[in-house]
Amino acid sequence: MNCVTIAKPQRLLGPVSIPNRLLMGAGPSNMFLDIVHSLSQPLLGHLHPEFIQIMDDVKEGIQYAFQTRNKLTFAVSATGHAGMECALMNLLEKNEKLLVVEIGIWGERAASLGERLGFKIKKIIAPPGKSVNLNNFKKAVETFSPSVVFVCHGESSIGICQPLDGMGKICHEQGVLLLVDVVASLGGATFFADSLEVDCVYGATQKVLNAPPGLSPISFSERAVAKIISRKEKVPSFYFDALELGNYWGCFDEPRRYHHTASISIIYALRTALSELVREGIEECVKRHTENANFFYCLLEQHGLKPFVEDPVLRSSNVDCGKNILAHRNPLQSLRLPCLTTVTVPEGVNWNAVVNDMMSKGIEIAGGLGPTAGKIWRIGTFGKNSSKEVIKKVVDELKKSIDTAANT
Amino acid sequence: MNCVTIAKPQRLLGPVSIPNRLLMGAGPSNMFLDIVHSLSQPLLGHLHPEFIQIMDDVKEGIQYAFQTRNKLTFAVSATGHAGMECALMNLLEKNEKLLVVEIGIWGERAASLGERLGFKIKKIIAPPGKSVNLNNFKKAVETFSPSVVFVCHGESSIGICQPLDGMGKICHEQGVLLLVDVVASLGGATFFADSLEVDCVYGATQKVLNAPPGLSPISFSERAVAKIISRKEKVPSFYFDALELGNYWGCFDEPRRYHHTASISIIYALRTALSELVREGIEECVKRHTENANFFYCLLEQHGLKPFVEDPVLRSSNVDCGKNILAHRNPLQSLRLPCLTTVTVPEGVNWNAVVNDMMSKGIEIAGGLGPTAGKIWRIGTFGKNSSKEVIKKVVDELKKSIDTAANT
Repeated sequence: MNCVTIAKPQRLLGPVSIPNRLLMGAGPSNMFLDIVHSLSQPLLGHLHPEFIQIMDDVKEGIQYAFQTRNKLTFAVSATGHAGMECALMNLLEKNEKLLVVEIGIWGERAASLGERLGFKIKKIIAPPGKSVNLNNFKKAVETFSPSVVFVCHGESSIGICQPLDGMGKICHEQGVLLLVDVVASLGGATFFADSLEVDCVYGATQKVLNAPPGLSPISFSERAVAKIISRKEKVPSFYFDALELGNYWGCFDEPRRYHHTASISIIYALRTALSELVREGIEECVKRHTENANFFYCLLEQHGLKPFVEDPVLRSSNVDCGKNILAHRNPLQSLRLPCLTTVTVPEGVNWNAVVNDMMSKGIEIAGGLGPTAGKIWRIGTFGKNSSKEVIKKVVDELKKSIDTAANT
Repeated sequence: MNCVTIAKPQRLLGPVSIPNRLLMGAGPSNMFLDIVHSLSQPLLGHLHPEFIQIMDDVKEGIQYAFQTRNKLTFAVSATGHAGMECALMNLLEKNEKLLVVEIGIWGERAASLGERLGFKIKKIIAPPGKSVNLNNFKKAVETFSPSVVFVCHGESSIGICQPLDGMGKICHEQGVLLLVDVVASLGGATFFADSLEVDCVYGATQKVLNAPPGLSPISFSERAVAKIISRKEKVPSFYFDALELGNYWGCFDEPRRYHHTASISIIYALRTALSELVREGIEECVKRHTENANFFYCLLEQHGLKPFVEDPVLRSSNVDCGKNILAHRNPLQSLRLPCLTTVTVPEGVNWNAVVNDMMSKGIEIAGGLGPTAGKIWRIGTFGKNSSKEVIKKVVDELKKSIDTAANT
C-alpha cells in the first residue's frame, strides 16, 4: 500500500528568518538572556524528580508573584486565555450566575465564554475610558447575587488598571467569589491576592515576566476550592480540571498522578522569569514600572501627545520628566496601567501608517482592540522593556513616525 | 499600603540543575540540536508577518505529516491531551453518541472526557493485549449508530498499533465521523488520514517529532467541518473552538482575527521538527522506526526478554538481528507499535528497581500505565532515538539492570 498523496512541502526545506524586534505591543515582550538560555536546556520527563523540584519552585514563585498562600497554585499548560477558561470552568456550573465587570474586551470575552458554558450573565459596564466604582459594584453584587464576579485588573484594550480595593470584602459579605484577571498587570501594577481577598487569579508569562507565551499561572483560595469540591457535575474539561491539575502540581500533599505532559521547556523559562522577579522584588518591580510609566507620560506630553486614560492624580504638564515624578502622584489612585500605556491617535493621523512605520524601524507597537480600534496606540513596557532608555527611544521614534505619517 | 505578606522564596534565588538524560520512556523524547536552536530564536508578535509565514509552514508540515489535504489543519496551543479535548468538544454536542474503541487508557480517557461533556458513550473493549477487529467494529457502529467513533492508533499504555484499514469506509456508510488519536504513533507507524478516510486526527510534538511538549497538531475533514458548522450550541470553550482557531491559522481564506497568543517558541520548534520530517520523508521515517523496532525485538529475544504484544507476523527466534529483518514481516499486519515497545517484566523481577537502576545510569524507561502497571516496561524509540546504536545500548543496560535487580 502506497498512500502518500501529499508531496513534501518545499517551503519547509528552506531556512526561516526571524528578525530581532523590539516588542512594545500588548505582549509577548522580549525575553532576557537567562530565559533564552533556560529554553535550550535538555528536556526531562514530566514526573522526573528534578522536574518536580522545578515545578515546586515555580509554584512558590507564583505564590510570591500573586502574594498568596493558596495551596492550589500552579500553571495551566496553555497560554493566558486558558487561565480564564480554567477559572470559569471550575468555579461555576451550568445555570449559575456570573457577574462581569466590563471595562474593555476582557470582560466581554469572559461574558461570552460564560455564555458558552451556560452561565447566567450580568454585566456592569464601565463608562468609556473609566473604571467601575465601588458603589455600583456593591449594588450589582447585592441585587444580582451571583456565584462569582469577574474583574480584569489590567484591561489591556484600554490601558486601565481597575482598582480592586474593597471588592473582596463586598463579595464575601454576600458569599460570592472574586475572580481577577491579572494577565496584563502582574508585576506591573500593585496586586496582593490575599490582602485583597481574591478567590481566583490568573496571569500569563509573556508580559512583565518576559517569558515566552505557553503557560497561565493560576491560584485558587480555600473558599474557591470548597466551591469546586462541592460541584454537582464534573468540570467539562479534563485538561483544565483544577483539582486534577492540583494533584499533578503536588498541591494537596498526596502522591502525584500523571495528568498530562507539561510544557517542560516553557516551565523552565517561567522558573527563570520568576527567579528574576524574586531577585528584584515584587514591590520594586511594580515601583519601577510605575516610575517609568510616569516618565513615559511626561515624554508624551512634551511631544504634544496625550495618554488615552485620563488621570485625576497626575498633572504633569509642569513636570520636567526628571527623577521625582513619582512624588507627584499616588499610583494606587491612578487608573493608568503602568505596564501598558495607551496613546490617543492625534486627529488626522493614520494610526496604521504609524504602526507600520514603527515596524519598519524594528519596533512593534499595537493599535486599539475592539472599541478602541483606530483611536489609540497601545504601547507595552513590560519587564525588561520598562526602562527609561527604551521608553525614550520609543517615544522619539513614535513622534518621527507620526510626523512621517502626517506628511504623506 | 504595604501588603507584601509572602516572603521571597529562597529556592528561586538558587541555580537549577537539569541533567542530560536519554529519554526512552513514553515521551517526551530528546530534542535534536536544530530544535534547541530554534527555541532560542527571538520572540515575534503572534500576528507579525514572519510569524504568520511560520504558521503557514507549520500548517503545511502538519498536512504532510498526517497526509491530508484538509484545509482546517493547525496546532492547538496546549499539549497532546488538549488535541483530544479540542476534537471531542467540537465534533459532538451534549447528548450525542460517541463510540469509543478502547484498547488501553487512551480510549478510557476519551470515554471519561466524553462523559464530562455530556455525551452518550458506548465502548468496544479490546481483549487484553489485542486490537479490535473490523467485524466487531462494524457491528458496533451499525447497532449503536453514534455521531463519532474514537480510535487511538498508537496505544502507548500497551504498545499496540490499532489497524485502521476499512474503519473510515464503515463509518461513512453509516454517516458517522471517524476520530483518530495519533499522539504516540505519528511518524512512527503508517498513517494516511485521507486514504483512511479519517475525519479528525490529532497528535503531539514530543514523541517522534522530538520537539518539546506544548502543541497538539490537529486536522478536520470537510465532513467534520460541516458537522461543526451545523452545531446547535457553541463549543463549550473559546480556546478550543476549531472554527475560531481555523480563522487565526488562516484556514478559511478570510482575514485573520486575534484569537489568543500562540506558543511562539514551541511553534518555532515544531516548524524545525516538521522540516526534519519532510527532509527524511514520512514513509522513510516510518520505515526506519519499523526496521529498528524489529532489531529491538530481536535483541530482546536474544537476551531472553519478551515483547508484551504478541506478533502473529514476526517469528524472529531464528533471526540474527541483521539487515534483513524487515523482509520477515509485513508491518501493516503487525500489532506492535514501532516507536514504543512494551517488554514483559520477567517473573520475580522488581520492575520499579529496574526503572530506578536505568535512571541512575541516565536512561529513562517507563513502567506500565493503568492495567499494565507492574507488568511491563514501556520503551519509546521516538524520532532520533530510533537508531540501532541507541537501541543496542538500551537493551544492554536493561539486561544488566534486570540482573542487578534479580540479585538484590
